[in-house]
Amino acid sequence: MDFYDYHYRVIYADTDRMGVTYYGHYFRFFEAARNEYFRELGLPYAECEKKGIFLPVGEAHAKYIAPSTYDDELIVRTSVSHLGASSIKFQYQVIKKETGKVITTGDTLHVFVDKTLRPCRIPDEIKAKVNVHALLRSKS
Amino acid sequence: MDFYDYHYRVIYADTDRMGVTYYGHYFRFFEAARNEYFRELGLPYAECEKKGIFLPVGEAHAKYIAPSTYDDELIVRTSVSHLGASSIKFQYQVIKKETGKVITTGDTLHVFVDKTLRPCRIPDEIKAKVNVHALLRSKS
Amino acid sequence: MDFYDYHYRVIYADTDRMGVTYYGHYFRFFEAARNEYFRELGLPYAECEKKGIFLPVGEAHAKYIAPSTYDDELIVRTSVSHLGASSIKFQYQVIKKETGKVITTGDTLHVFVDKTLRPCRIPDEIKAKVNVHALLRSKS
Amino acid sequence: MDFYDYHYRVIYADTDRMGVTYYGHYFRFFEAARNEYFRELGLPYAECEKKGIFLPVGEAHAKYIAPSTYDDELIVRTSVSHLGASSIKFQYQVIKKETGKVITTGDTLHVFVDKTLRPCRIPDEIKAKVNVHALLRSKS
Repeated sequence: MDFYDYHYRVIYADTDRMGVTYYGHYFRFFEAARNEYFRELGLPYAECEKKGIFLPVGEAHAKYIAPSTYDDELIVRTSVSHLGASSIKFQYQVIKKETGKVITTGDTLHVFVDKTLRPCRIPDEIKAKVNVHALLRSKS
Repeated sequence: MDFYDYHYRVIYADTDRMGVTYYGHYFRFFEAARNEYFRELGLPYAECEKKGIFLPVGEAHAKYIAPSTYDDELIVRTSVSHLGASSIKFQYQVIKKETGKVITTGDTLHVFVDKTLRPCRIPDEIKAKVNVHALLRSKS
Repeated sequence: MDFYDYHYRVIYADTDRMGVTYYGHYFRFFEAARNEYFRELGLPYAECEKKGIFLPVGEAHAKYIAPSTYDDELIVRTSVSHLGASSIKFQYQVIKKETGKVITTGDTLHVFVDKTLRPCRIPDEIKAKVNVHALLRSKS
Repeated sequence: MDFYDYHYRVIYADTDRMGVTYYGHYFRFFEAARNEYFRELGLPYAECEKKGIFLPVGEAHAKYIAPSTYDDELIVRTSVSHLGASSIKFQYQVIKKETGKVITTGDTLHVFVDKTLRPCRIPDEIKAKVNVHALLRSKS
């Protein structure tokens, strides 16, 4: 699987008084999308946690190209762009379904940690299943 | 102390595309207000938790009389309107500072529970310090 | 249609450090559910707005019976329990899919208003299509 | 003014079930901090909007160094690190008050636009008052 397409419809709670989705809420969408990416791989993140492996966010970034608003259908295309010894990087493209245009891009960097929050090696199960694929070029 | 006045300034994140504070966000304001009510009493809720006492919400209610919007200064007047054997009820009046008008009222009912989430008797320390005072009449 | 079942999966953003869905976020779920109720009727709320009809929330209420947590699948069963001359009341039952148990109930009261925020009569189109059906008894 | 220190106390709503502040909520804190930065300059953002000037976010970034949790007092140190012809960049350092340690850094890039969302030149009033000052080095 090169990427996973998570579908989301914008609600009033996501918008702000400029009439568009609040910039901070895209990070919610990113989270929901990577949850479903893992589930699609057969590795629900809830299962990881039961095994004592956690994936806190180390870095997060978004670039806002065009706005979305109430009732827009969004596709959050999600891939793993990098797998390190104990880290994983996701990339996201938020696509407005109606137009097919990419309206936001982003990425998040995560570190695998154990219950004591100490970094640990990436589980073999994840290494075996994840297919590294870049959606975005360069630093973003 | 009959009530505590918590001050809050509305940010973009609180508003929705109707240009007003999203109805669900008032429950955030209520939470922040009751945190500060406890702190003012000398009983920070974080201290309660260290002692193994938690206060999950059993019921929540809000009545929206007039809207607030970006940059409005709000006063969330907060009182304890009822103390039961193992429960506590808070009432809230959200006042627009500029006009002095009450724009939203609400209440939340909480149950004292221990670490195993079983209801427990209200701690004596709280019983001794809390002054029951109703801001609102009747069912709200 | 007596009610509509909106499906939602809890994400990390919805939870708080007690490990459960934050009480205020259920009002987001209620909003998403009534959006989909209207869409299912063939009356998307976005269409209402284009016609200059808005439905601000006048009152909101939730009763928390049992918690939900990360990755839980929730069904938000949604009905219209009352139609007034210019108001509409929704009722909600949040059901944990895995157990079939109702974990939260709630209701929201809305007023039909025009662009100037003045109450207006309920549109005939809505009156004709909505089937009044109570999910919950009594005051809630 | 080189920077402005915005004070914020973490509430339950900000935390997630890992027990720490949810990564996406830091962007709320950043927004509140830059609102207060402008107010301190004597240029409340609400006033800018009344003049038909808006500042949508073009890019946002955060780096999470250490967690914060419920009831932590945070200082969000905020500066303007760059002023372009029609853009402005803010930098943020989130400091845990108790320890004085920087727990999160971030930046946001904004474009000045008019009512039609077309980029416009940075208002002279802002240019005259803002003192460009970098909190963070390099790309962040």
